[in-house]
Amino acid sequence: MTESGKPILYSYFRSSCSWRVRIALALKSIDYETVPVNLIKDGGQQFSKEFLALNPMKQLAIIEYLEETRPTPRLLPPDPKKKVLVRMISDLIASGIQPVQNLSVLKQVGQENQLTWAQKAITSGFHALEQILQSTAGKYCVGDEVSMADLCLVPQVANAERFKVDLTPYPTISRINKSLLALEAFQVSHPCRQPDTPPELRA
Amino acid sequence: MTESGKPILYSYFRSSCSWRVRIALALKSIDYETVPVNLIKDGGQQFSKEFLALNPMKQLAIIEYLEETRPTPRLLPPDPKKKVLVRMISDLIASGIQPVQNLSVLKQVGQENQLTWAQKAITSGFHALEQILQSTAGKYCVGDEVSMADLCLVPQVANAERFKVDLTPYPTISRINKSLLALEAFQVSHPCRQPDTPPELRA
Repeated sequence: MTESGKPILYSYFRSSCSWRVRIALALKSIDYETVPVNLIKDGGQQFSKEFLALNPMKQLAIIEYLEETRPTPRLLPPDPKKKVLVRMISDLIASGIQPVQNLSVLKQVGQENQLTWAQKAITSGFHALEQILQSTAGKYCVGDEVSMADLCLVPQVANAERFKVDLTPYPTISRINKSLLALEAFQVSHPCRQPDTPPELRA
Repeated sequence: MTESGKPILYSYFRSSCSWRVRIALALKSIDYETVPVNLIKDGGQQFSKEFLALNPMKQLAIIEYLEETRPTPRLLPPDPKKKVLVRMISDLIASGIQPVQNLSVLKQVGQENQLTWAQKAITSGFHALEQILQSTAGKYCVGDEVSMADLCLVPQVANAERFKVDLTPYPTISRINKSLLALEAFQVSHPCRQPDTPPELRA
């Protein structure tokens, strides 16, 4: 919290995990302050003592918390059977894909293997995801309401594009991603429009 | 569901993700049937078409679903501030540690690097986790009630032991793990006591 009571988001413009939370904040019209944390500079500012004490990185927990304390508009459908679909899709992305292709893992894999590694993680996850979405999706991931699953989808598709993954085998993913990117909350939260976005990547 | 209406758990005795769900089912006294899925045999039975259609692997979503449909005993504290702590710890393990040291990632890393890779993933996660638990733990991960965080902790510590991680730097993790393993739900769900546990690993 800032002195004026605004929540603070520790954020890195390019982090898909930060982006998820930024979308939730935008959808719920929550005004917040960004404190940039550069995941690359100084060997990764997230490893600094100050930052570890704040313990970020658990972004789905933050979104669930926002959902409980600021329930409108809802990001989880009230029906338990639909809700489990939203959480399954969110988990598939947040636990099944993103962690296997994130910065710290890629660092360990070595520069020359990074692209292949990331592509493999994303395509095998997207293969499963595309099948699931074919039975759950309406306009968005689950039916026609924006949900937590959509907050996970868009940043992951952006990562896929960054790693030059061919998206033609995933028509449902691509269609939903496109519809979501047309919404304001997904635009204002976009990595190309953050306080810490470098000038050359702004749009 | 079986014909008699019992839920079916597609489970691998050694999988930490299956174990999490088994603990939840035991705590909530839900009778279920196990259908073993061997993650190693036949190149990984989880990749078969039948199984992909069932889409497992999203274990926190299953636990959240059980929590909503079978709320007693509760695995999430009612207070939103405590609940976010439970979910943060669960996410730290389920998204931050487990996916980086799971079977499919280790396969890609190559036999000779597996142990070092897994140890690194676990120790860096446990370093953060130990710090967090020092401020959240009572008898268990968050206060004195068993929660979803505990369901994630015990299987992850078992993985750490399997990968020969030295646990002395993590006294809080070790203490909580020991208390939890004394509870019946954590014992009946243990990998050494499952229908698909090979005879030489039974206890």
